[in-house]
Amino acid sequence: MKYDRIATLLSKSQAGRQVTICGWVRTFRNDRFLAVNDGSSVSNLQLVLEKENFDEATLKQLSTGASVTAKGLLVESQGGGQETEVVVEHLELLGAADPEEYPMQMKRHSMEFLREKAHLRFRTSTFAAVFRIRHGMTFAIHEYFHKNGFYGLHTPIITGSDAEGAGEMFKVTTLDLNNVPKTEAGEVDFKEDFFAKPTNLTVSGQLEAELGAMALGKVYTFGPTFRAENSNTSRHLAEFWMIEPEIAFANLQDDMDLAEDFMKYLLKFALDNYPEELKLLEEKELNDEKSKPQAERNEMPLRDRLKFVVENEFERVTYTEAIDILRNSKPFKKKKFKYPVEWGIDLQSEHERYLVEKHFKTPVILSDYPAGIKAFYMRRNDDNKTVAAMDVLVPGIGEIIGGSQREERMDILLEKCAEFNIPEDHVWWYLELRKFGTAPHAGFGMGFERLIMFVTGMTNIRDVIPFPRTPQNAEF
Amino acid sequence: MKYDRIATLLSKSQAGRQVTICGWVRTFRNDRFLAVNDGSSVSNLQLVLEKENFDEATLKQLSTGASVTAKGLLVESQGGGQETEVVVEHLELLGAADPEEYPMQMKRHSMEFLREKAHLRFRTSTFAAVFRIRHGMTFAIHEYFHKNGFYGLHTPIITGSDAEGAGEMFKVTTLDLNNVPKTEAGEVDFKEDFFAKPTNLTVSGQLEAELGAMALGKVYTFGPTFRAENSNTSRHLAEFWMIEPEIAFANLQDDMDLAEDFMKYLLKFALDNYPEELKLLEEKELNDEKSKPQAERNEMPLRDRLKFVVENEFERVTYTEAIDILRNSKPFKKKKFKYPVEWGIDLQSEHERYLVEKHFKTPVILSDYPAGIKAFYMRRNDDNKTVAAMDVLVPGIGEIIGGSQREERMDILLEKCAEFNIPEDHVWWYLELRKFGTAPHAGFGMGFERLIMFVTGMTNIRDVIPFPRTPQNAEF
Repeated sequence: MKYDRIATLLSKSQAGRQVTICGWVRTFRNDRFLAVNDGSSVSNLQLVLEKENFDEATLKQLSTGASVTAKGLLVESQGGGQETEVVVEHLELLGAADPEEYPMQMKRHSMEFLREKAHLRFRTSTFAAVFRIRHGMTFAIHEYFHKNGFYGLHTPIITGSDAEGAGEMFKVTTLDLNNVPKTEAGEVDFKEDFFAKPTNLTVSGQLEAELGAMALGKVYTFGPTFRAENSNTSRHLAEFWMIEPEIAFANLQDDMDLAEDFMKYLLKFALDNYPEELKLLEEKELNDEKSKPQAERNEMPLRDRLKFVVENEFERVTYTEAIDILRNSKPFKKKKFKYPVEWGIDLQSEHERYLVEKHFKTPVILSDYPAGIKAFYMRRNDDNKTVAAMDVLVPGIGEIIGGSQREERMDILLEKCAEFNIPEDHVWWYLELRKFGTAPHAGFGMGFERLIMFVTGMTNIRDVIPFPRTPQNAEF
Repeated sequence: MKYDRIATLLSKSQAGRQVTICGWVRTFRNDRFLAVNDGSSVSNLQLVLEKENFDEATLKQLSTGASVTAKGLLVESQGGGQETEVVVEHLELLGAADPEEYPMQMKRHSMEFLREKAHLRFRTSTFAAVFRIRHGMTFAIHEYFHKNGFYGLHTPIITGSDAEGAGEMFKVTTLDLNNVPKTEAGEVDFKEDFFAKPTNLTVSGQLEAELGAMALGKVYTFGPTFRAENSNTSRHLAEFWMIEPEIAFANLQDDMDLAEDFMKYLLKFALDNYPEELKLLEEKELNDEKSKPQAERNEMPLRDRLKFVVENEFERVTYTEAIDILRNSKPFKKKKFKYPVEWGIDLQSEHERYLVEKHFKTPVILSDYPAGIKAFYMRRNDDNKTVAAMDVLVPGIGEIIGGSQREERMDILLEKCAEFNIPEDHVWWYLELRKFGTAPHAGFGMGFERLIMFVTGMTNIRDVIPFPRTPQNAEF
């Protein structure tokens, strides 16, 4: 079935063509104006029917959610609100949607309700916009790296390595849970398992990405990662997508430059390619914020926030400077922070948001964190206290990127393995990188859903991934 | 560290520039000619050293695998074999690679040996070429769909749905395997598990992709999929990547058109963008084939095979026609086929390869298979015996794409669920698609590693994915 996508028919310049369209009914007014959407744009296409040309039974079934195909002449619209419309010559109902049962009626639904209907929420304007933008960001990520000489690397999802230490892991097994085989010593007999050893779902592709970078020069991963943490918040998922570039012959400055350039490229891509979607989401946000106290509203509307990041340099501050700023801040002096602020602590969301939203009012890159709160592979600074780590913080979200220069010196890496209780034989391949042609290198991870939240203004991470996985929930 | 990528310095037009390069030593001849590779191209860059400008200790460490950075003037090369070379003014050793220990010396290694060294095999010309092409194909896939109005959809990796029936699944759990909690009835107490029910790793994103297509019109997935099958062959992985487009308002013809256009786009992209890599891999294949009997050699060299697919129309044949062809074939009459050939059987690799390589000598799309050997969701044909399924077969690989028009009629889908013993409450959301605005739709799955094998000529699937997962093996 050849048909015209509605997104290509909305401008006057297209008028005069004979067209075929397919889509789902959004509204049907006065037995005459049928608004149809095929998922290709925020705007519906208006079909104009001559009532007398269609039998009543068909007209009756043209309710919200029904699928139709129609042929006719695309003309300049007489009414306001749209540039073009179709004078329908032929219309066929493909599938009805009983108004008594179809849950996606043209009224406001709560986000919670729509999450339970995740199989149908793609049909709402809001979610269609979110998922078109999610697609656009996926493409822009691959395009950015391709243009800049990076090679995509599919790092393993099932892993026998647990060195990253980024969090609780899901076990992967083919053992019969009803009757787990045991060794004579009474332990799980992993020799019977598929991989003949315990395996987990990956928490990060970084260690493997380093292997690629140290041969191909610049690589990136873009794949699913997992945390088995019992966090039922609006910012956490058990399954989420992460982008992890890794660059050889690079230090922390190069890493920060890459992160900033990358973020700006993505946001500019969204602004350039999804103006209608962003307008819709901005209006939704402004509307939702009416019921919120002033303090919880965004200082700038959505599109302005994105432009602001594209147009402004990110502020670069060391962790040590940030601690000073926080300890001299009003909320600290007035004891408004819930968590303590002192050198050596991990910054909490309230601290990050103060720095970004109140103090600097711009995206911030914090760097050179205390070694004790960061991972074993981060490069030790000359002060022997901090490591060459960096986090990018943005308004409303907090940390969106976390990265570091990696420890390329074998002797220091071995010390760190000992400190972090990582057995050398678990990471023999990671260590060999330092033995054979080692070189400075760096990289970062960006949570894809955090990015989509930032770009779309959606406030719950469950609403920016098609089928969220959270504690007690693996529906669809 | 700003540096020039070697790929950008190899043509004469670049000569005359002051350049900085970083990379790994491939060879060092006569204490003068240092061949360096940074992963950006098949060709090395030749650095010319004036021996007397460097101390002996440094020169001694410039062995294969060592990492270096150098500055100098890029000039037209005096020697043959390369267009440009660098007259080195400054050279720094970043990391040595002890020749006594470094396993990647400049000699032929067996593929088995290199698999054990998967952390270092990116540094060989062959694997660097394979993984650059793998990246290129990843990009081309996203580009093809983006240009053609598809939206990428990240379908879930962890799934509570097991309806697809595509094969054995890996279990995902957070239960303590040493002490699995049991209910009073003595069964596994999944209420204690992370998702409060049994979950698995996905075998396909198709069912969820359909949900997206029936709102956004055209979607695709590109993600990891899993099979817990104990198949230790050169064509099977436990973890592999799959591309699954799904299109609304489409029938099986549209699906075949899409598959053919998609394949041709990808192969043309490879030919246009990776000429050096394909030349290298073609030479490797020709060399490897010298030790094989004539019958096992490819009829055409690698690049000709790819061009052949780009330039020729795929032959479209029904399953029923294919059975006739096979039963009238010489190998059938001479009883050379190992497996039986009769209407209703699943075709074996030997049959598919006969059709593609001997009979048609071109890619073939087989369609309209017996319902009994295909999945529950495939659309029943009017003959009541076959379904609107199709497989694309290519030389050397066999099936590279499998797809179908989906059953969009609720009554027939319910019959199929009953036939296949799929409880309706497991697929309530899938059924609701047929209840609310159903429409004809179709899609297919392409195994990404099969594609990369076809494009690169590599004969073992373990050699086209960075870190293969197979029975008893989850290293790295």
